[in-house]
Amino acid sequence: MYKIAVDVMSGEKKAEELIKGALKALAEEKELELTLIGEYDIISQELAKTDFDSNRLKIEKADQIITMDESPVKALRKKKNSTVNVGAKLLRKKEVEAFISPGNTGSVMAAGLLKVGRVKGVLRPPIAIQFPAINGSTLILDNGANTNCSPENLEQFALMGQLYAEKVMKIDNPRIALLNIGEEKTKGNKLTKASYELLNNNPKIKNFIGNVEGRDIFSEKVDIIVTDGFVGNIVLKTTEGAASFFLELIKDSFKTNLLSKLAAFILKPYLKKSLDKIDYRQYGGAPLLGVKGLVVISHGSSDSTAIYNAIKAAKKSIEENMVELIKSEFAKNEELE
Amino acid sequence: MYKIAVDVMSGEKKAEELIKGALKALAEEKELELTLIGEYDIISQELAKTDFDSNRLKIEKADQIITMDESPVKALRKKKNSTVNVGAKLLRKKEVEAFISPGNTGSVMAAGLLKVGRVKGVLRPPIAIQFPAINGSTLILDNGANTNCSPENLEQFALMGQLYAEKVMKIDNPRIALLNIGEEKTKGNKLTKASYELLNNNPKIKNFIGNVEGRDIFSEKVDIIVTDGFVGNIVLKTTEGAASFFLELIKDSFKTNLLSKLAAFILKPYLKKSLDKIDYRQYGGAPLLGVKGLVVISHGSSDSTAIYNAIKAAKKSIEENMVELIKSEFAKNEELE
Repeated sequence: MYKIAVDVMSGEKKAEELIKGALKALAEEKELELTLIGEYDIISQELAKTDFDSNRLKIEKADQIITMDESPVKALRKKKNSTVNVGAKLLRKKEVEAFISPGNTGSVMAAGLLKVGRVKGVLRPPIAIQFPAINGSTLILDNGANTNCSPENLEQFALMGQLYAEKVMKIDNPRIALLNIGEEKTKGNKLTKASYELLNNNPKIKNFIGNVEGRDIFSEKVDIIVTDGFVGNIVLKTTEGAASFFLELIKDSFKTNLLSKLAAFILKPYLKKSLDKIDYRQYGGAPLLGVKGLVVISHGSSDSTAIYNAIKAAKKSIEENMVELIKSEFAKNEELE
Repeated sequence: MYKIAVDVMSGEKKAEELIKGALKALAEEKELELTLIGEYDIISQELAKTDFDSNRLKIEKADQIITMDESPVKALRKKKNSTVNVGAKLLRKKEVEAFISPGNTGSVMAAGLLKVGRVKGVLRPPIAIQFPAINGSTLILDNGANTNCSPENLEQFALMGQLYAEKVMKIDNPRIALLNIGEEKTKGNKLTKASYELLNNNPKIKNFIGNVEGRDIFSEKVDIIVTDGFVGNIVLKTTEGAASFFLELIKDSFKTNLLSKLAAFILKPYLKKSLDKIDYRQYGGAPLLGVKGLVVISHGSSDSTAIYNAIKAAKKSIEENMVELIKSEFAKNEELE
């Protein structure tokens, strides 16, 4: 059985919507055991409306929510019975193998670090996010867990990203690159110059292809890109901003007149299909790699589709033993030292 | 007379195309005097094909080109008679007031710094680029001239950006922000934390609105964003990459079948109009602010429209006395110290 806990209360969407996604995954995946975390009454009322395999579904009470604007660490300390604290506790006690939350990103991250704990040998767990690309996707680490990074941190991001890409994303011999402002190895700031050497000389990083630039994220050139959490987070938000700005422009042009509206109506289904590729909901949330349990940070605006895909992706990570693989990767490191 | 030199040889497009844009600007702007830099025969052959006011147009011979993959400083030293060296020399000798080049960005920048020289008091001249935004545009500095920056550098970028936005972009009381990974003043890395204080406490920075995130670039929230050249360059390339990826997806959906092709054909003019907003060619190149002359770095793929707009923008900067304004801004600084 794959045991996964889902925080259905602290996202921007209602519990009802998130439970719908969870139940869909439960119905499809027969070896799944779900724990829904949140207010008992709300969840049980919602469950009463529908049929599901009650042997494989539990409710875990949590009557507090950490809001999006709260200071993560303080809120975790204060709200002992928050969904995020409860989920992290289940994970630490190994009652579940994965915990998914669409809540306050900082709080989920902090709970992962402080309550679940780092894998021995991992200096700084990164947030890994799949960015859409022309053929498939590009995994970027870190997207904001670690604002100031050392070259050794980036080296570890590459190793964890490599395992995740091979096992969960099923990419053979994934190409790993360093995000930089030019392709030459002498380009960049102090961090990228020092990291280049480490990545290039580490025999365990199998397919290091050098530096890539911002535009390569969306290309076919690379599978995994490492960068510090400051730059990664800015890249993430810039991409989100550019995409919604672009979409806004397109929509504007559609509204010009009656003819354009008609043409847009015809195009809508084709356009939708094409744009599904850049829909973050397809990618099932962002794992915080390198903690002693699978912590998945979902987008705050996650709906049933996003939660459904997050559960599927978490199941895949459990199947592939991601946490154990990272443990043994870094245990080997320890031995070498 | 506004005297502007244009390098018509070292871009990706042919001289013929770039000369077309220059001549269009010359015909429109009666107080413009242009110097076209490049191979004499090529330029004069092109000019022979058309009518123009020959009293206001000169050719300046330069028979070498610095290619896109050459090391900027080495190439400048080696190729004494390159378009970029020749242009920088004209500017230094005050034979022209502005020099525009679509060539190797690093070489144009280095020529600006080394041959034209920094304004007294300016530590690091930044590249300023206008990013399209939902209502107008957002000026970002620096976009790649300075990989490693100090808080004092960012403070100066804000002051120069403020002058440029007020005078050339004609924005009243422009809102200035720091690019960061969250809005709270305690967010970010060492550079942003220290820069926040400087920007916030400098009375000459009139409208500092705090931190903004990557997605705000394209919004109505802010007019000027300062960041170090490493992050700025990654933001620039990520935006370019996201835009062309998005466009690719849209085009794909249009090609689905006969019906979608027909609808797309109808929509094309409206879509084009809407997407003109994100066309870099509208923004007339990127000035390297803080050097003793107006150096404008144009996109490598600049065509006649891009060159035409770059000339118009350069003329505006000359009219507004940008270089002198920056000089007196930083001269005042010197006195205060």
